[in-house]
Amino acid sequence: MRYVLIIAYDGTEYAGWQTQKNAVTIQETIERAASELFGAEVKLHASGRTDSGVHALGQVAHFDASLSLPAEKIADALNAVLPPDISVLSSSVAPDGFDANLSAKKKTYVYRMYFGKRRNPMCDRYAFFVRGECDIGVLNGAASLFVGEHDFAAYCASKSSAKTTVRTVFETKFYESEDFFGRTVSFEVTGGGFLYNMVRTMAGTALDCMLGKVTASDIEKSLSSPERSLVGRTLPAKGLTLVSVDYSPFVFA
Amino acid sequence: MRYVLIIAYDGTEYAGWQTQKNAVTIQETIERAASELFGAEVKLHASGRTDSGVHALGQVAHFDASLSLPAEKIADALNAVLPPDISVLSSSVAPDGFDANLSAKKKTYVYRMYFGKRRNPMCDRYAFFVRGECDIGVLNGAASLFVGEHDFAAYCASKSSAKTTVRTVFETKFYESEDFFGRTVSFEVTGGGFLYNMVRTMAGTALDCMLGKVTASDIEKSLSSPERSLVGRTLPAKGLTLVSVDYSPFVFA
Repeated sequence: MRYVLIIAYDGTEYAGWQTQKNAVTIQETIERAASELFGAEVKLHASGRTDSGVHALGQVAHFDASLSLPAEKIADALNAVLPPDISVLSSSVAPDGFDANLSAKKKTYVYRMYFGKRRNPMCDRYAFFVRGECDIGVLNGAASLFVGEHDFAAYCASKSSAKTTVRTVFETKFYESEDFFGRTVSFEVTGGGFLYNMVRTMAGTALDCMLGKVTASDIEKSLSSPERSLVGRTLPAKGLTLVSVDYSPFVFA
Repeated sequence: MRYVLIIAYDGTEYAGWQTQKNAVTIQETIERAASELFGAEVKLHASGRTDSGVHALGQVAHFDASLSLPAEKIADALNAVLPPDISVLSSSVAPDGFDANLSAKKKTYVYRMYFGKRRNPMCDRYAFFVRGECDIGVLNGAASLFVGEHDFAAYCASKSSAKTTVRTVFETKFYESEDFFGRTVSFEVTGGGFLYNMVRTMAGTALDCMLGKVTASDIEKSLSSPERSLVGRTLPAKGLTLVSVDYSPFVFA
């Protein structure tokens, strides 16, 4: 039987999703909890990796097992043994032919920043601080250039092992919102898939465009003939959250 | 010369505001930074203590010093040496006769909770998780009972050294809000001053009233003839934030 989990995590203390040597990862932490709980080795397959320090509100993963526990009880059973910074939000039986990675149609990430005169420690854990004022119009102008099918090689860390650096971005927007701890500016991007560091470099390039360090023409060029020097900085992982994965027609909630 | 600082902090890693032996506190951390920066011992006087693990968006403190640095530059100078979980939001010269503790008229705290089927790690650092649904009407009904001048002895941890346990609560409300990471329920309370653990026990009592563990009549009794058994639980520090201190006619921003 194949099961699907929707998983949220605060990635601060983890070396990303994917299991690796000499570092604690989300995948490994959940696999260990599940293997112990079910008394058999469990191997998780996620929609994709998230990088070190990146968070998730809606990571999706599947695993194969034969369990006597009803599918909807798996979430609470896992949460009872998982650390507080990882939570399985729901568990269910996977639809026929479902694969958390291969069936994914779109992914939505949000990169959060906050602007002001001084750092606010209550915003700082999950958002990047920018000293000064925000010009949301310029940010949105820059972000709109990313929409479409492009070679994003210039937005990709060199350690990426991707076969192709061509990706499709469906939608981008910057929006402001006010929450209890302060005002935040969020960069929301939906795409077919993303390269290593790609969202953080898109967000940093839009920011550097607002700050006059990169021009709109640089961004256009960077997407037709990729060159790292045309794009802006890669913002730190703490501001990035994988919000949701779209599996239409499959829906999980 | 007397100076006023407005300070924000993530209290998670600190044993509260007030300097004590064998534990790192906010006061001590800022005093050390200031003493090093100014080359003379600096003693901070805050509006009041915050307990271990409690956060602040608008703690106010004064100190006396003779500095060549312009008052408004002190904030950035301190922030350059403070750890990222403490930030001085503003610095200015204190008005004549100002004392951060004695001049305080009102304080506003917010206790944050979130309701749902399962924990959300992205809400969990600064809010208390309650499994189930929220009945904001019952919470507000319970909270309204706290308004007025009462003996809050039943809401006070026994280790308090307060001379009197009578306090005045001016306003209370529960309200729901939606931020990026999820829906939150906040208990906002404004009072002349608060006893050790008082806000957390008021929030816990309102919650336990909603859950049927405490009745409105228990709460009324607890305020006329204090008895600990009449009130609900003391919620954990992580959900509590000192939002602002009212010094009218003095205003800092």
